[in-house]
Amino acid sequence: MADTDPLALPAFRGASCLVTGGLGFIGSNLALALRAGGAHVAVVDALVPEHGGDWRNLGDARSDISVTVAGIGDRDAVIPLLRRADIIFNVAGQVSHLESMADPLRDLDLNVRSHLAFLELVRDVRPRATLVHTSTRQVYGRPRYLPVDEEHVTTPVDVNGVDKLAAEQLHLIYAAVHDIPISALRLTNVYGPRQCLTRDGLGFLPVFVRRALMGETIQVYGDGQQLRDCLHVDDVVRAMALAALSPDAAGNVFNLGHDEALGLGTIARLVVDAAGGASTVGSVPWPPDHARIDIGSFRGDFSKAKRVLGWAPEVGFAEGIAATIAFYREHPWYLSST
Amino acid sequence: MADTDPLALPAFRGASCLVTGGLGFIGSNLALALRAGGAHVAVVDALVPEHGGDWRNLGDARSDISVTVAGIGDRDAVIPLLRRADIIFNVAGQVSHLESMADPLRDLDLNVRSHLAFLELVRDVRPRATLVHTSTRQVYGRPRYLPVDEEHVTTPVDVNGVDKLAAEQLHLIYAAVHDIPISALRLTNVYGPRQCLTRDGLGFLPVFVRRALMGETIQVYGDGQQLRDCLHVDDVVRAMALAALSPDAAGNVFNLGHDEALGLGTIARLVVDAAGGASTVGSVPWPPDHARIDIGSFRGDFSKAKRVLGWAPEVGFAEGIAATIAFYREHPWYLSST
Repeated sequence: MADTDPLALPAFRGASCLVTGGLGFIGSNLALALRAGGAHVAVVDALVPEHGGDWRNLGDARSDISVTVAGIGDRDAVIPLLRRADIIFNVAGQVSHLESMADPLRDLDLNVRSHLAFLELVRDVRPRATLVHTSTRQVYGRPRYLPVDEEHVTTPVDVNGVDKLAAEQLHLIYAAVHDIPISALRLTNVYGPRQCLTRDGLGFLPVFVRRALMGETIQVYGDGQQLRDCLHVDDVVRAMALAALSPDAAGNVFNLGHDEALGLGTIARLVVDAAGGASTVGSVPWPPDHARIDIGSFRGDFSKAKRVLGWAPEVGFAEGIAATIAFYREHPWYLSST
Repeated sequence: MADTDPLALPAFRGASCLVTGGLGFIGSNLALALRAGGAHVAVVDALVPEHGGDWRNLGDARSDISVTVAGIGDRDAVIPLLRRADIIFNVAGQVSHLESMADPLRDLDLNVRSHLAFLELVRDVRPRATLVHTSTRQVYGRPRYLPVDEEHVTTPVDVNGVDKLAAEQLHLIYAAVHDIPISALRLTNVYGPRQCLTRDGLGFLPVFVRRALMGETIQVYGDGQQLRDCLHVDDVVRAMALAALSPDAAGNVFNLGHDEALGLGTIARLVVDAAGGASTVGSVPWPPDHARIDIGSFRGDFSKAKRVLGWAPEVGFAEGIAATIAFYREHPWYLSST
């Protein structure tokens, strides 16, 4: 894993790929990896304020990637893109749990309605394209057992989780009923290059990274014992590629997780260490709005992805976070972007 | 159980009740039972074409029940109703599975977006009101085991199921996060008076009843062995009343089911018998659009409702369908309504 060079996916050489949300964190890493592998890459991104999408995420590859700024349900903008697409990676979405509780109708529109409109366009225009959808471990809610496998009940604890689950289920229904080769990946917490660091609400990892880089105290809620199995974005990108290429993926949902599950306090300390130890780790009581939608410890069982897709995470947290810190030191605008 | 007199719910005497979808099948039966018990009843109903809502469902009680024709997310119409409501029964919704596949965005707007807008209004205006939401066994999809309890995974097989599940989960999140005393009931197939008989797509029971009353052949799909635990609407109305009155209901979801699970062929024959035997039962292969979203046999485990609410079904199918047929013979407009 190089510090700043994107992963390359040569299996997609010459293929036409469409990445929704391709100016955002995971989408831009995927778009760059596809382009580095020789694919023709188009991106559609609504650049919704506060979602972390940024033209600069594509860096110098901007001239090689076709970018359309539009919502994924925008018929006029999306149909021409779909007509050319062999493989569609549907990554677009709003990820903030707190934001979804403050403005639930907006979350519904962004995370469900626009995806349903997009699926209808795919069904109309390009039903033979392979489609990989990014879902989230948030669909499970509070785990009943660990590690959580795909058979675990899905009882989300916030509006964002409900909406992401509905979108995932809609994707799988379009696979089953309309014979579109769609698969879905349930992501756990993801970190790595090209993540918006300056906004809270996009997960604890970018906040930890920002504070470590700024020399500020990382505040961990409660006792810091809650487990998370964090994934480096390169591992996620590889899983998306395998889901697109696997003949057995269609109609299935796969957990992506990591066998290295760490407490939040440990994660915070590893981030501080990776950044050179200038910042510290503190502890604060749970803010009430967070506590009400918190899920406790989580680790995902990814044996189905291993079995069907041949995927397993390759990047350990200490290694991945060191490369991540190095990336942001080379791209300091991520710390001042608004 | 009288043939045409509505159930009366004296426990609600003097209470202010709001019934959404109160001109429809279940909503009108509930509104009439509340009114007969001495409650002050207001109804809000969008009278969405093809949903089965009809002013005539309230019969002579129309003058005693305040009716507002509006969507449940309509702020100006709904806020004054919420301010007066002690107990809210949220029954509104679109129920057709096939319709949801043909126009999925409409189903999303009616079954999720409007409910989320309604919940936001409840949270703003009347967060202390008790709210009972009607969900559906459709949230389970194809049963993994029978009888299906509330711990069964929820994997809907059509857009309507996804949308109903999202709405139910949103209700329970508003209960947990915003402390609103909300419960949800997952209904199995319901029959009885005041059901729209003339439109297909509202379930097989009204179609069977219509064909029996018209002396037409009831066509059962496939071998007719699929099990269903049908509920008379009076049993559903009693469950809703118990959910509103029980101090332990809030935050919970309850299956409503029946221990009498019958094959579809048997159900058809019982409907024919109840109507006097003038019609017949036939068999046709599964239409492809139905087959793709069919769930096989279903019977619900309602032991949680029994334990927590003290509810069990009281109306057997033969008895209930006889009373239902008698009702429609006395109200023949149901057979010619469009």
